[in-house]
Amino acid sequence: MFQHTNRILKKNGLFRPTLVVLASRVQRNILRLASKAKADNVELRPHFKTHQSVEIGQWFVEAGIKRITVSSVEMAEKFAAAGWTDITLAFLLNPLELHSISALAKTLASRGGRLGITLDSAAAAKAITSEIPVDIWLKIDTGYHRTGIPWDHSHLLRAVVDHLPRAPHGLLTHAGHSYHTHGAPSLRAIWAETLRRMQSARSILGNPELLLSVGDTPTCSVVESFQGVDEIRPGNFCYYDLMQLKIGSCSANDLAAGVACPVVGLYPERSQIVIHGGSVHLAKEHLEEHGRTIYGKLGYLDPGRVVDEAVLTDLSQEHGTVTFLGDTFPRPDQLAIGDLVLVWPVHSCLAANLNLPPRVLPNTK
Amino acid sequence: MFQHTNRILKKNGLFRPTLVVLASRVQRNILRLASKAKADNVELRPHFKTHQSVEIGQWFVEAGIKRITVSSVEMAEKFAAAGWTDITLAFLLNPLELHSISALAKTLASRGGRLGITLDSAAAAKAITSEIPVDIWLKIDTGYHRTGIPWDHSHLLRAVVDHLPRAPHGLLTHAGHSYHTHGAPSLRAIWAETLRRMQSARSILGNPELLLSVGDTPTCSVVESFQGVDEIRPGNFCYYDLMQLKIGSCSANDLAAGVACPVVGLYPERSQIVIHGGSVHLAKEHLEEHGRTIYGKLGYLDPGRVVDEAVLTDLSQEHGTVTFLGDTFPRPDQLAIGDLVLVWPVHSCLAANLNLPPRVLPNTK
Repeated sequence: MFQHTNRILKKNGLFRPTLVVLASRVQRNILRLASKAKADNVELRPHFKTHQSVEIGQWFVEAGIKRITVSSVEMAEKFAAAGWTDITLAFLLNPLELHSISALAKTLASRGGRLGITLDSAAAAKAITSEIPVDIWLKIDTGYHRTGIPWDHSHLLRAVVDHLPRAPHGLLTHAGHSYHTHGAPSLRAIWAETLRRMQSARSILGNPELLLSVGDTPTCSVVESFQGVDEIRPGNFCYYDLMQLKIGSCSANDLAAGVACPVVGLYPERSQIVIHGGSVHLAKEHLEEHGRTIYGKLGYLDPGRVVDEAVLTDLSQEHGTVTFLGDTFPRPDQLAIGDLVLVWPVHSCLAANLNLPPRVLPNTK
Repeated sequence: MFQHTNRILKKNGLFRPTLVVLASRVQRNILRLASKAKADNVELRPHFKTHQSVEIGQWFVEAGIKRITVSSVEMAEKFAAAGWTDITLAFLLNPLELHSISALAKTLASRGGRLGITLDSAAAAKAITSEIPVDIWLKIDTGYHRTGIPWDHSHLLRAVVDHLPRAPHGLLTHAGHSYHTHGAPSLRAIWAETLRRMQSARSILGNPELLLSVGDTPTCSVVESFQGVDEIRPGNFCYYDLMQLKIGSCSANDLAAGVACPVVGLYPERSQIVIHGGSVHLAKEHLEEHGRTIYGKLGYLDPGRVVDEAVLTDLSQEHGTVTFLGDTFPRPDQLAIGDLVLVWPVHSCLAANLNLPPRVLPNTK
């Protein structure tokens, strides 16, 4: 299995740390969620911050996706340049970027599309003048407590709406606290609570026309129905990662982005190897497991498998230290300097951001 | 102080998360270490992985530096293209990159310079043929236990040397365990131990001509003399960061790279603000402080100051959550959406890697 992965990576000409994207698995992940959304007549507006790739964006087009989410003005401009016309910038309005936002909104409108923006304060609402053709989403805090107007804060909800140049397009939330739980029952409970809170906020505003936009990868991966909202905006589901695996949003065979890393040091006496693959390739996101801090795990390509006994226990700028906790992976003295191993990252969005554009492997199941 | 920083950042035309480099402080940090090395007649071969900037590289030239260290073949190629001719690749040889290494070594040699490479195994030693004009450094493990031949492992030391096409140029170590301690006495003890161990390894090999190359920013910043080694290779000292401040390698006024971030959300009821500045700008490196996980701290530009009561307590892809633990910084209701705050990163090398090329601010003291 290890040699099979090593051979595939080498056959693809890899020789440096490289993010590899498994095309058929990404396409399967996209289709699964797109079908579920379609069955409920809910718009899937995927978050493109995960892959940030124009090439992979095309796979969403093939699955019938026409509207997307991004997290920065630069990302919106990049995908607009690639032909996307309906883009929501799901990041609070920064008034210092108003000029670029206005220009982009006009471009998209002229192409029959639409730029959506997000805000949660009267100050930001005042910055939007009526001549800027944007859809305005009110950001609602449904329990994550990062940004947003608290869902039950009727005074603030109304105050922000009062300062808008036109009625808001809808209410938008990110229930990021789903990342702090695990298992389908807990995730479904967060989904249901989010829904109730969004509906309450809409009732407070007394406008049944307001669209509801929700959706993070953990809850969207496990709920059976999206009914009750208009739109979902998960992003990570195209790649998934070790964090999602731990939360319970995916299985090992759904993992669709890994980092191919050359082995550069072998230390059998301490059951470790060192790879070229550090924080600048994998990002320093970690999991805690059995009292250990883990920055990634080795795995196999085809079929996808995670080796729980071969874990990255240290990560510096360019080096990754892999510790073998058992013998399910070849021992350090059975590996060679120059072998390529596959590392599943803890957080694929951050690993992908460090490795643009990704390298697509077409034929992995 | 906050308004002064906000004004300087705005006057420089900043409006998105941007790594700002304070030129006069970097130049002072470089000169301080270069003078100390010169006084001891020790070569300062700075590690350019910290800034990765051709522009900032020129400031080293102005301080008399002619030889540099890098951590990847790509980085070596970049600085070779910018005119550097004497480069050590202080990362274990990856045989899959031998072709590029050989080509680069020949280019540098033809320009009267030299490429240095690093290895710690017989397998890697065998990969180097005599026609590749490189200086070969043996990587020695003096206690960090990441890579290297253990300093006292006489059999392995000799076995690797036996497989080389020519005598090694010297012994090279990175005492990265200095990052796990703090205070000058502990750091000086690590320096002294490293020196003894490197000298022992050289004695084992019985070749007094072997050069000794050591040096990380923490120990190099606090030892009074570099005597006993031929070369030091610190990198981070040009920028420093919160981790170095905690270790005791620098003072707040030495911090020379911060990330300017727009304020996008104000939450006075929970003493928090949200900035545009996340893991893709600052990197998810953290410190533990008073039971809290901290991803950065707010500060002032001129004079440099760290506000210990305004700390980044959460970091997602694009968002940073700043929590105010006291009232030494303006309260959230005294700030405005669109203000620019300065964040001192925990680990400036990783923040710099995410923000290439950096934005240089010329006039800060």
